[in-house]
Amino acid sequence: MIEAERTPWTDVAGHLGRTDAPPASRLAVLPFGALEQHGPQLPLGTDTFQAVHVARGIALALDAVLLPAVPYGDTWNNAGYPGTVSLSASTVAAIALDIGRALAASPAPASGLVVVNGDWGNRTPLYGAVRTLLQEGFPAIALDYPGLDAAAAAVRTTQSAAPGLNHADELETSMMLAIDDTLVHPERAVAVYPSFPGDFGTTPMQLHPFSPSGVFGDPTAATAETGHRLLDATVAGSLTVLTDFLARLP
Amino acid sequence: MIEAERTPWTDVAGHLGRTDAPPASRLAVLPFGALEQHGPQLPLGTDTFQAVHVARGIALALDAVLLPAVPYGDTWNNAGYPGTVSLSASTVAAIALDIGRALAASPAPASGLVVVNGDWGNRTPLYGAVRTLLQEGFPAIALDYPGLDAAAAAVRTTQSAAPGLNHADELETSMMLAIDDTLVHPERAVAVYPSFPGDFGTTPMQLHPFSPSGVFGDPTAATAETGHRLLDATVAGSLTVLTDFLARLP
Amino acid sequence: MIEAERTPWTDVAGHLGRTDAPPASRLAVLPFGALEQHGPQLPLGTDTFQAVHVARGIALALDAVLLPAVPYGDTWNNAGYPGTVSLSASTVAAIALDIGRALAASPAPASGLVVVNGDWGNRTPLYGAVRTLLQEGFPAIALDYPGLDAAAAAVRTTQSAAPGLNHADELETSMMLAIDDTLVHPERAVAVYPSFPGDFGTTPMQLHPFSPSGVFGDPTAATAETGHRLLDATVAGSLTVLTDFLARLP
Amino acid sequence: MIEAERTPWTDVAGHLGRTDAPPASRLAVLPFGALEQHGPQLPLGTDTFQAVHVARGIALALDAVLLPAVPYGDTWNNAGYPGTVSLSASTVAAIALDIGRALAASPAPASGLVVVNGDWGNRTPLYGAVRTLLQEGFPAIALDYPGLDAAAAAVRTTQSAAPGLNHADELETSMMLAIDDTLVHPERAVAVYPSFPGDFGTTPMQLHPFSPSGVFGDPTAATAETGHRLLDATVAGSLTVLTDFLARLP
Amino acid sequence: MIEAERTPWTDVAGHLGRTDAPPASRLAVLPFGALEQHGPQLPLGTDTFQAVHVARGIALALDAVLLPAVPYGDTWNNAGYPGTVSLSASTVAAIALDIGRALAASPAPASGLVVVNGDWGNRTPLYGAVRTLLQEGFPAIALDYPGLDAAAAAVRTTQSAAPGLNHADELETSMMLAIDDTLVHPERAVAVYPSFPGDFGTTPMQLHPFSPSGVFGDPTAATAETGHRLLDATVAGSLTVLTDFLARLP
Amino acid sequence: MIEAERTPWTDVAGHLGRTDAPPASRLAVLPFGALEQHGPQLPLGTDTFQAVHVARGIALALDAVLLPAVPYGDTWNNAGYPGTVSLSASTVAAIALDIGRALAASPAPASGLVVVNGDWGNRTPLYGAVRTLLQEGFPAIALDYPGLDAAAAAVRTTQSAAPGLNHADELETSMMLAIDDTLVHPERAVAVYPSFPGDFGTTPMQLHPFSPSGVFGDPTAATAETGHRLLDATVAGSLTVLTDFLARLP
Repeated sequence: MIEAERTPWTDVAGHLGRTDAPPASRLAVLPFGALEQHGPQLPLGTDTFQAVHVARGIALALDAVLLPAVPYGDTWNNAGYPGTVSLSASTVAAIALDIGRALAASPAPASGLVVVNGDWGNRTPLYGAVRTLLQEGFPAIALDYPGLDAAAAAVRTTQSAAPGLNHADELETSMMLAIDDTLVHPERAVAVYPSFPGDFGTTPMQLHPFSPSGVFGDPTAATAETGHRLLDATVAGSLTVLTDFLARLP
Repeated sequence: MIEAERTPWTDVAGHLGRTDAPPASRLAVLPFGALEQHGPQLPLGTDTFQAVHVARGIALALDAVLLPAVPYGDTWNNAGYPGTVSLSASTVAAIALDIGRALAASPAPASGLVVVNGDWGNRTPLYGAVRTLLQEGFPAIALDYPGLDAAAAAVRTTQSAAPGLNHADELETSMMLAIDDTLVHPERAVAVYPSFPGDFGTTPMQLHPFSPSGVFGDPTAATAETGHRLLDATVAGSLTVLTDFLARLP
Repeated sequence: MIEAERTPWTDVAGHLGRTDAPPASRLAVLPFGALEQHGPQLPLGTDTFQAVHVARGIALALDAVLLPAVPYGDTWNNAGYPGTVSLSASTVAAIALDIGRALAASPAPASGLVVVNGDWGNRTPLYGAVRTLLQEGFPAIALDYPGLDAAAAAVRTTQSAAPGLNHADELETSMMLAIDDTLVHPERAVAVYPSFPGDFGTTPMQLHPFSPSGVFGDPTAATAETGHRLLDATVAGSLTVLTDFLARLP
Repeated sequence: MIEAERTPWTDVAGHLGRTDAPPASRLAVLPFGALEQHGPQLPLGTDTFQAVHVARGIALALDAVLLPAVPYGDTWNNAGYPGTVSLSASTVAAIALDIGRALAASPAPASGLVVVNGDWGNRTPLYGAVRTLLQEGFPAIALDYPGLDAAAAAVRTTQSAAPGLNHADELETSMMLAIDDTLVHPERAVAVYPSFPGDFGTTPMQLHPFSPSGVFGDPTAATAETGHRLLDATVAGSLTVLTDFLARLP
Repeated sequence: MIEAERTPWTDVAGHLGRTDAPPASRLAVLPFGALEQHGPQLPLGTDTFQAVHVARGIALALDAVLLPAVPYGDTWNNAGYPGTVSLSASTVAAIALDIGRALAASPAPASGLVVVNGDWGNRTPLYGAVRTLLQEGFPAIALDYPGLDAAAAAVRTTQSAAPGLNHADELETSMMLAIDDTLVHPERAVAVYPSFPGDFGTTPMQLHPFSPSGVFGDPTAATAETGHRLLDATVAGSLTVLTDFLARLP
Repeated sequence: MIEAERTPWTDVAGHLGRTDAPPASRLAVLPFGALEQHGPQLPLGTDTFQAVHVARGIALALDAVLLPAVPYGDTWNNAGYPGTVSLSASTVAAIALDIGRALAASPAPASGLVVVNGDWGNRTPLYGAVRTLLQEGFPAIALDYPGLDAAAAAVRTTQSAAPGLNHADELETSMMLAIDDTLVHPERAVAVYPSFPGDFGTTPMQLHPFSPSGVFGDPTAATAETGHRLLDATVAGSLTVLTDFLARLP
C-alpha cells in the first residue's frame, strides 16, 4: 500500500510500473467524506475519518494506492447546524470525475478508481460521476459501506431512529471510538428518537427541526469493540463486492 | 483557534456565538493544496502540507476556525508526471464558492473566508471564486503566500530556475524539512536548471519536458532553518495583508 | 379531478380558483415515465402507462390536476436494447424543475407538485429537482411507488431476478395486464434468471449482457388480478405517504 | 408504421432491421407539443394533439416509427394564463438532442429524426438541437407545419389577428374539430382582434395583456371540414419538404 | 448622439445624466455583425459595416449612445469558406446579455438596449438574450433590418437566389457601395443562382456546396444609389418599429 | 499583412494558401480590448485602441492576418464608473475559444492565434482559453504587452499609483496621444494618487471609491513621444516573446 500524499511521485510511478503486480495493486482508493454535524459527542469530520479508515483497509488488502481524502461532501440536510459546510451535488460529482479522468490520462494510469463514500448525500453525485467514467472506459466504482448493515444488525444493541438512518448514533459513535477515541466526547451522548412525518425518507428534508442536538438514535450504547467489528465488516464487505470488479480489470 | 474537522459542531457553534470576541475570530481559514509532483525528494502533498502550516499559523494568531484542507488543486502543468492528480479550474472554483456560500448561509455564519492557497494553478480559479463571493456580500480573500518572496530573497542561497518559479527547489524543500522532515528524502535531491523557451511564463506549458525529475532549481541547499524562516515570514506577511481586510469585517 | 391536457385553460383556472376547496385539490400530479425495453411481451411505454395509472388514481382521490405524462426518462442501463430512447439525467431534472417553476410562477399557482415516477433511472434526477423546488419554496415530492414492495411481497408467486430488480417480470406484466391487456403479448413471456456479478447493484451496468430478451424474472405467472392488487396498493401507499405532505401545504 | 410506445422492443428491432425496406421506414418521427392556453374553447394540449396528428400522417406515409409526443414546450409568451406550463428553451433543446443522440447510438439506429413541431416557441431551440445533431452526423430535421400557410390562405374565411399569428383562431379551432370534436367547446368561441404595438412580433411580449380570453382571431368560423383540409395539406407539405431530406439518407 | 468608444466616461455620464432629455436619448444602440464571407467582391466585415451604418442612423435620430460594434457573430452556415470566423450561438447570446446587464447595473443606467443585428445567424441567440433582459426588467429589443424587405421589393432589379436569402447579392453589394466603395470589388461580381434541395430553409445547411464563390444572387446590378435607398429605408423602418418601444420606456 | 474585416474571403484564402510563405504569415492576430473608463481625458475605448495598435504592429512585422478587435472585455473593477460596459469572465473566454476553434476548423486553417490583450481583467479568462486551445492541439498565445514594463521604467517621469497599476496615467495617456491625439483631452488631466488598503492587489476591489475621476497616477506628464516609445517597445517585446512560439509552429 502506498499513501500518495506522503510519497514522492517517483515512488508512486515505481509502484504503478511494476509489471509483475496484479492490476488490483494499481487501483486508486479515494475516501470521500464530509464536514457535517454528528451531535455534540462526535467531530464534524466523522464521515471523513470513517471513510479514510475503511479506504485504508481496502488499500492495505489490495496493496493499492490510497489517495488523500476529500473532507467535504454534499450534506445539505444538515446545513441547519452550525459547523456543517456542504458542497453542492454538482461539485461533488466534478471532484470525483476530475480525479478519475486525471488518473486515466496520467502517463502511468491507475487501473481504476474505488471511491469509498462516507456521506449519504454523496451517493447520488458519486454514482453519476462513476457512470460517466465507465462510459469513458475507465473502471470505477463507488462503495457505500457494503457489509455495514448486515454487521450492524448483528451487533447493535439499540434501535435506529428511522429505517436507514444512522447518524451520530450507537453505530457511528462506536466506529469513532474505534478509530480515535480522543475525538469522542461520550459524556455528552444523549439518545434522541424524533417523531418523523410520513414522507420522511421520501422527500428531501432538513434534519435540524427533528433533533436539536443532531443525534438520531442512542449513542450511549456505543463501544470501541462494536466499532471495530463494524469497521472490519465494512472492509470485508467492500472486498467481497470488489471481487468481480477486480476480475474485470484489464 | 478551533480545528473544525476534529471538533463537534456544538463547540464550533459556541466559538462562533461569542458576543465578546472580535470578528476575526469568526473567520474560517481554508488551506487549498494540490496533489502534485515535487521531485523525488518531496511528497506529492507538499503544497497541501505547506498551505496547512501557514493556515494554521494564521488561525492561531487570529483565534479563528481552521477548516480541513482541500488536498487537490489545478496542477495541469505537472500532469505529465505520474502521481499528479489535477482538478479542472472550474472544479477548484466551485469548491471554494460552495464553501464560502455554505459559511455565509449557516445559522451561525462565519465573518468571512480566508483561503490560503498553496498551488500556483489555483490562483486564477480562486480569484474568480473570491470575486463572486464578494459580489454576493460575503467577505473573502485568497492569499498566495504574501511575504514569501521578500523572505526568500533574503535567505535563499541558490538561484531560482526561472523568474517566479519555485518548484521542488531550495525553498520548497526547506519548508518541508521544517514542517515534517520524515516526509523528505534529501539524499535524492539533485539540482536541475532547465533551459526554457522565450515564451515560457507567457503561454501555458507542460513542465515535464524541461525536467525529468520534476526539480526546478537546487534543492540540495535546503535546510529546516531556512524553511522555518520562510514559513514564519509567510504567516507574518499574511497577517499584514489581512490587517485592512479584518478592519472591514462587519 | 381535472385532466389538464384535455381541458381549456379557463376550466383549470376555475378549478384552481375555488376558495372553498382544500389545498390538495390544487396539487398538480405529474406522471414521469420512460421509453424503455420491457421484454418481448410488454410495450416500450410500460413505465409511462403505469405511472399514468397511478397518478390518475392519486389525482382522482384528491380531486387534483393531472398533468400530461413525460413519456421519456433516464433509461441508460437499457440503452443496449433497440427501441429504448433515453434522456440524460440532467434533462430529466430540467423537465421536472421547469414544470415546478412554471406551476409556482403561474398567476393561479398550484399548491404543489407530486411527481409519480415510473422509471428507476429517474429517481436520482427527480430527487435533485424536488430538492431545488423545495429550496425555492414550492412544495414538491417525487414518489417511487410507495406500497408496491409490500404488496408485491404478499401477492407475487415468483422470485425477483435480483434484490430490488423488477423488470418485465411477474409484477410489471401483471400491472400491464390490468391497465391494458391489448398491449401485452403473454404468449411471448419466458422466464429469465441471469447470473450477476458481485458488484451488480453497486456500480452502474448495462443490462443487455445479462438477458438477451430484456426479461428479468418470470413473467409467465402474471395475471391481471395481481396487477390490480399491486396498482391499488401503490395508489393507497402513495396517499399514505402524502398525508403529512398535504397537511403542510399552505 | 409502428407506434413505439405501444410496441415491444423486439417488434421495433424487427422493423428497423429489415434489409429490404427503404431508409425512410427507419426514420423516427417525434411530435413536439406544448401545454399552452388556447382560449376557452380549446384544450391546453391543442399543440400536442395537432403535432401528433400530423406526425402520425407522416409516419403512416413513410411506414416509419412514431415516437411518443413531448407534451410540453417553450410557451413563455402564454405564461400569463393559468394552466399554461412552459419549459425553458434550453430544456426543449436538450430533450430533442437527447432523443436524437439516443436514436443514433442505439444498436439498431434509426436512419434519422423528423421533429414535428406544434408550438411556435419551440422553433428556436429545436433548430439549435437539429443543427447540433447534423454536426454530429445524424440526419435530423424540424418541421414547422410546411404547407399550412398556403392552405390557410385558400380556406380561411376570417382574418388573422396579426401577421403570422394563428392562435386559438379559426385555423386552430378547425383543426381541433377535425381531430377530436369532443375536446372543443364551440359555444364558448368569441372573436378577439386586439390592437398591438408597432414592435409586436419584433420583441418578445407576453400575450395576456392583449386578449383576456386567449383568443387571437375569430374561432366562430371554424369547421371540421376546414380543419381536415388544413391538416391534410400540412401532412402533404411535410412530405414534400422531406423529399430531398429522404433522398440524402444513407 | 454620442459614440461611446471615442468618448471619455465623464461625457457619457453627462449625456446620460441630463434630466431634461427624453428617455430615448439614454438608449444604447449596439451594432452586432459578423466576420463572414460575402463573395469575392465584398469584405468579410460586410455585416458589421452595415449594422454600424444602420445603428449610427438610429442613434443620430434619437440622440442616443452608439456602442462599439461586435464584429463577430454566429455564421455557422458560412464556415466552409476560408476567412469566415464564427462564434457559437451561446457566445453571441452571452455577449448581448452581459452588455445589457452591464448597462442596467451601471450607476448611470441606460434607458434600454437596441441591438441592430446584421447577421442572420445572430437572430436566434439575440432573441433569447433580449427575452432574458426583458424578464429581468431591462428594456431591450433586437432589430433585424425592419423595412429592408419592403424597400428591396421596390428597388431591386434582380431576383433573390432563394426566398429570404440575400447574401452577397445586388442588395448587399449596393449597401456596401453606399457605405464605402473602397471596400468593394465590383469587377469580381458574378451572378450565382444555385439549385437548392426542397428542405433548404427548413433544416440547417452549409452554404459552400451551393456556391463556390459565396455569391447568392446577382451582384452585378448593384449601385450605390440602390444601397442608399435600402439603408435609409432600414433606418426609417427601425425608427417606426421603435416608436412604441420608446413610448414604453420609463 | 492582411486586415480581415476589410478584405474579401478570397484574398484571405489566397494569403493563407501560399505554399512558399512562412507559418508566421498564416497567424491570426486578435486585439482584445475593453469599454472601460480611463479618466476624463481618455476615451472609453482606450484599451481597444492600444491593443489594435500593438496587434497591427505585430501583424505587419510577420505579414500575418489581423482580425477585427473585440471592443469589450472583463472590466468588472471599473463598473462603478458610468460608461464602462463589462463582459463576464466566462464570455471573454468563450469569445477567444470560439475564434480559435473557428480558425482551427476552417478549410484554410490559420497556423495559430496570437491574442494581444489590452485589458487587465481579460488576463485570467484569456489564459484559460489559450490553455484549452493548446490542449486541443491549436497553437495559441495571449500577450499582455511584454516589454512595456521595462520600457516604462526607462521613460516614465512620474510614479505609478500602485505597483502594477497603470490606469489613465502618464503611460496610457502618452500611448493614446501617440495613437490618435484627437481622442485625448489633455486639458482635463489631473494627477490622482489614492491611498489604498493593505490588501489592495490581493483581493478583488472596485476602483471608484479610490479615485472619483478614474485617474490613477499623473497623466499631466504624458507626451506623444513617450507614447511612441512605449508602443514600439511593446511591439518589439511581443515579437521577442513570440520567437520561440513561431519556431514551434508546424
